[in-house]
Amino acid sequence: MSRLQLALNVDDLDEAIATYERLFGGRVEYRDSLAAQGVEAAAVLVGEGRIELLEPTGDDTPVGRFLARRGPGMHHVALESEDVAATLRELAAAGAQLIDERPRPGLFGKQVAFVHHESVHGVLTEVVSVG
Amino acid sequence: MSRLQLALNVDDLDEAIATYERLFGGRVEYRDSLAAQGVEAAAVLVGEGRIELLEPTGDDTPVGRFLARRGPGMHHVALESEDVAATLRELAAAGAQLIDERPRPGLFGKQVAFVHHESVHGVLTEVVSVG
Repeated sequence: MSRLQLALNVDDLDEAIATYERLFGGRVEYRDSLAAQGVEAAAVLVGEGRIELLEPTGDDTPVGRFLARRGPGMHHVALESEDVAATLRELAAAGAQLIDERPRPGLFGKQVAFVHHESVHGVLTEVVSVG
Repeated sequence: MSRLQLALNVDDLDEAIATYERLFGGRVEYRDSLAAQGVEAAAVLVGEGRIELLEPTGDDTPVGRFLARRGPGMHHVALESEDVAATLRELAAAGAQLIDERPRPGLFGKQVAFVHHESVHGVLTEVVSVG
């Protein structure tokens, strides 16, 4: 696992990108949308980490419901893996409760899988492929 | 700004450390407590990032109140700076609302300062010295 990544729910993607550029020297790495998840997104490199900004395309989407319930803010943590499937096997062997038993397509053309927040002290945690 | 860091509220510091070691190859870098904030803490290196685990020493502490209200989970993001005072001047000039106008002593012997969550789309954000 290498880069640490943090995914945030935002009301306005362009405004949030501008904030991370202006305040923290962020550099947009990718933009993408995922119709199945109802989300518009940007990956912004900040220092040695990455901030993923997620704007829902509607209220009745996973991110839209989270935003309505909790307001804008932190959604989940992600850790990069060179081999998501192998990492999932290691996590399962170590006792983690997996939401995704195998990698699935995520934003930015990457493979992703989620670990249940109850396995990680309340923090929804994603494993994301490097490439 | 270099390393990205994420601070989490936890119920049990030792259990949380063990989880990050077991699941994500975390390595404890520091342990510390800050009586003024009522917190026991550990810094755990995970990949190229750092997870800071915060356990309150009592219910009537900032972290204790947050934990009672929200449960365990993500508390704030931190970004390292070689010069926290200079970064604060840059942030103020860029329009950020600072909670701390100047650096103050934080955990692990570091200098810290916080940026108000309303300046960063709902995410409480800390600037923390490298050393």
